Amino acid sequence: MSKYRVALVGATGAVGREVVRLLESCSFPLAELHLFASPSSAGKKILFRTEELTLQTLSEDSFTGIDFALFGAGKEVSRQFVPHALKAGATVIDKSSLFRLQPDVPLIIPEVNGHLLNNPPRLLAAPGCVTTLLLMAIAPLHRKWPMERLVISTYQSASGAGAKAMEELTQETAAFLKGAPFQGTSMPHPYAFNLFLHDAPMTASSYNDEEEKVIRETRKILEVADLPMAVTCVRVPVLRAHSMAVNVQFRESVTADEAAAVLRASPGLRLIEEWGNNRFPMPIDASGGEDVLVGRIRRDLSHPHALDLWIVGDQLLKGAALNAVQILERLK
Amino acid sequence: MSKYRVALVGATGAVGREVVRLLESCSFPLAELHLFASPSSAGKKILFRTEELTLQTLSEDSFTGIDFALFGAGKEVSRQFVPHALKAGATVIDKSSLFRLQPDVPLIIPEVNGHLLNNPPRLLAAPGCVTTLLLMAIAPLHRKWPMERLVISTYQSASGAGAKAMEELTQETAAFLKGAPFQGTSMPHPYAFNLFLHDAPMTASSYNDEEEKVIRETRKILEVADLPMAVTCVRVPVLRAHSMAVNVQFRESVTADEAAAVLRASPGLRLIEEWGNNRFPMPIDASGGEDVLVGRIRRDLSHPHALDLWIVGDQLLKGAALNAVQILERLK
Repeated sequence: MSKYRVALVGATGAVGREVVRLLESCSFPLAELHLFASPSSAGKKILFRTEELTLQTLSEDSFTGIDFALFGAGKEVSRQFVPHALKAGATVIDKSSLFRLQPDVPLIIPEVNGHLLNNPPRLLAAPGCVTTLLLMAIAPLHRKWPMERLVISTYQSASGAGAKAMEELTQETAAFLKGAPFQGTSMPHPYAFNLFLHDAPMTASSYNDEEEKVIRETRKILEVADLPMAVTCVRVPVLRAHSMAVNVQFRESVTADEAAAVLRASPGLRLIEEWGNNRFPMPIDASGGEDVLVGRIRRDLSHPHALDLWIVGDQLLKGAALNAVQILERLK
Repeated sequence: MSKYRVALVGATGAVGREVVRLLESCSFPLAELHLFASPSSAGKKILFRTEELTLQTLSEDSFTGIDFALFGAGKEVSRQFVPHALKAGATVIDKSSLFRLQPDVPLIIPEVNGHLLNNPPRLLAAPGCVTTLLLMAIAPLHRKWPMERLVISTYQSASGAGAKAMEELTQETAAFLKGAPFQGTSMPHPYAFNLFLHDAPMTASSYNDEEEKVIRETRKILEVADLPMAVTCVRVPVLRAHSMAVNVQFRESVTADEAAAVLRASPGLRLIEEWGNNRFPMPIDASGGEDVLVGRIRRDLSHPHALDLWIVGDQLLKGAALNAVQILERLK
């Protein structure tokens, strides 16, 4: 069996740390793991299994001999260094939004469109966290009963804004409880016991960039170029799992039981539907877990062809790190 | 000018305390204020303006000589004592859900259907908090452009579950931050940095009772018996303001600017729409304030006749206490 040299760009971020942890425990045949981070972390060491790995700073030559490069350090780092990784012969799995909508770049959730990995180009993209968690639940339904409209409201956690945002949410909340002032840098608004519409830049459509990404990435992955979607993205004071209320309108009538049966048989999903106990998925159920949780699948009382779903998933795992590592595993 | 004898039932609850505060500062001509609470509070005193009022326990004779009785102590107390208040000749404003859907009981939001107070019966009901905040924003639109469907996701605060739930949210969060165990009694699930679908009892429709109430109360107030509505009610770790993402589908096309102009001219509403700063209503903007906040009014990209609205309001004030006091003021 071949062993591969892998580079991870953004190794100290919230997602990067999860990628390291997943690579430690998964069966992917690693020959070498090269960890890259910002210059401020250069020289620091990370224990990987029994080995100490030194964090390196990226340069144009960093990818010589690398088989697979995972990029998870944001658009600007990808813009600057993905071309060098490709030039050096590496296959790139990019977590940033930079290439996601480029027609020649497959946008991959292995359970949903893993067939695109059969003879893949050398540049692959992973979708955003909301899109990934959403599609895990709605793609299996769409395959069976084509959808004609989606109305989505999200409840997004701090982790989507990075490790610092998670730390600041707890720090700010502790300060709030003491009545102490707090000055954070990662969020645009007070966050302790508060929530706000996602602060991604506003676009000309009056949807913000986060909402636009969910729409465009979903359409690309489902291969329905004009799927009608309304999305409202909201940041809530939760640490690392995103939730969403999803109203799915199909072309035909689908019962909640039929939908639940399809989802129960879909990989990477777990249903929590304790109707008698009023117990459905919560962020604390999803945090640290690999499954996307779905529950409270019910007939929408306002439309004969619509169902309501409640979807919760770990933003850092299936929403980001796990999906990227699963793509890597499929490429070996 | 006449002065009135007023009884407040549920004076120590989260809503009751706000009613007391509002009566202190408003111009309603009080002759006497009688405060009723559970037996455990009996004999305790509350300072009202310059006077100490003693908390009393309810009995069948409590309403002798009372002109107006405000009930805010839940369905069971209303079931037991509203008949006695009516028998004693009082006009009752009931905040519980007990009588809201009864055909001969007007369900009142003064700004929306205050005309029903012109020659009112002696039993009046106030809607639930979500319905009240929702209707403040959508009723003025519906009056001008009839709606044909609503899809609503809520972000509901602790206060809706009472004063104890608010205290426990901060206590549980403090314990979480210290890594200490916490055993609360007011919420069915962990609440610190977590959220969950509203735990109101499940109904046969698979909507829970909270969601059913929003639908039925909205239909009654708008006088559209079959208005199609999908509602998902979610409890989030916020202290005292509810938010909601509302997708409003009209019979005809309405622009965001047209809707904003109508809302800007509607009483009790305040628009926060700083598109350039990405600044829209948040719970901390609404908490302690009397206005319902609306913002991010935008064209729904998925439907030619739909708009998305974001609504935030203080659950204890316009969602409950303020609305009841405004009804009282209209009756003088």
